[in-house]
Amino acid sequence: EQNAALSVKGIGIDTEMLNSLSLDNPNFVKRNYTEREIRDCQNKPDPKSSFTGKWCAKEAVVKAISSFASSVGSKIPTTQGAGAPLLDIEIINDEKGVPQVKLEGFAKTVCQQLNIRDVKVSISHSDTYAVAVAACEE
Amino acid sequence: EQNAALSVKGIGIDTEMLNSLSLDNPNFVKRNYTEREIRDCQNKPDPKSSFTGKWCAKEAVVKAISSFASSVGSKIPTTQGAGAPLLDIEIINDEKGVPQVKLEGFAKTVCQQLNIRDVKVSISHSDTYAVAVAACEE
Amino acid sequence: EQNAALSVKGIGIDTEMLNSLSLDNPNFVKRNYTEREIRDCQNKPDPKSSFTGKWCAKEAVVKAISSFASSVGSKIPTTQGAGAPLLDIEIINDEKGVPQVKLEGFAKTVCQQLNIRDVKVSISHSDTYAVAVAACEE
Repeated sequence: EQNAALSVKGIGIDTEMLNSLSLDNPNFVKRNYTEREIRDCQNKPDPKSSFTGKWCAKEAVVKAISSFASSVGSKIPTTQGAGAPLLDIEIINDEKGVPQVKLEGFAKTVCQQLNIRDVKVSISHSDTYAVAVAACEE
Repeated sequence: EQNAALSVKGIGIDTEMLNSLSLDNPNFVKRNYTEREIRDCQNKPDPKSSFTGKWCAKEAVVKAISSFASSVGSKIPTTQGAGAPLLDIEIINDEKGVPQVKLEGFAKTVCQQLNIRDVKVSISHSDTYAVAVAACEE
Repeated sequence: EQNAALSVKGIGIDTEMLNSLSLDNPNFVKRNYTEREIRDCQNKPDPKSSFTGKWCAKEAVVKAISSFASSVGSKIPTTQGAGAPLLDIEIINDEKGVPQVKLEGFAKTVCQQLNIRDVKVSISHSDTYAVAVAACEE
């Protein structure tokens, strides 16, 4: 089952400068990151870089889900608007260091409605920016 | 039909600094962007950023088509050379804000010959550059 | 056979500033690039950019392989640690200019064990950085 062939129907990319997010604002952080993500980033050598990388991953996932919906001709809303919190999309590395996507709430419901079985993401950082790419599979 | 499983055989990525294109040159713009794309970019808050994002998307699509051709062992030419215009590859967002790829002319013929059914693309911008990723599916 | 449908199960992205690698250190270069890659980069108009692009491609491939392993629930090690040489992953453009991935040694063994049939990669450069994306297919 887990090994069954998947096929990509949605892709997303996002990039952000490391100084572009309001990471000094606790409300911003709580609106967009789970407690587990916050602990995870604060324990990294460069928390700002880790928070920004996760942000890019979340945005790339949103774009990949919307891309998937367009691809299958679905009319259901795939986002809750530009300012919607990204708390529903949790990005935590597994033991291999591979970022895993865990969906809750609205994002989870959308993926269930679209029959999206899996969302993959990869993240990279430089000194000045982060970038992430995501793919949605049915 | 639209929901049939697709499989990715080609990927492409492109990035450009926001000041790297000759966007002040009307001939450059007309050679590479459709009238619909020009209107679309000029109506955006930051036209330079939008033009550069579409450029990256077009280049990423060209790379994904070439990647697909290599993947299936095809010897047909997939580009018309380094300076070829990108007018054949139109990038317009749908109502979900997902960039859609519309092919004409040479690019369309190549995709038909290679049995490429779908080309997906995603675009992101920062203050200084744009980046796009594309995938080709049969 | 070559045309059989593939499905993506792993993705990777990597970006590096053009001045971030120890390319002036011959040991660094020999540890991470094959002789063919070194010749190839030295013959390019901007060797530093080419070396950095290939580095990003190699790192993106490592991430895509690890992503694939996580996706299929495999516990086998997919890397030899953070400082492991990238010599096993050779990136050479084909006659279409599409970067092709050739695996040797540890990387090749891992892909065989995971039944990864194909690894695709795409590379892009700006004046200041390079970025690459990779996908693994079974």
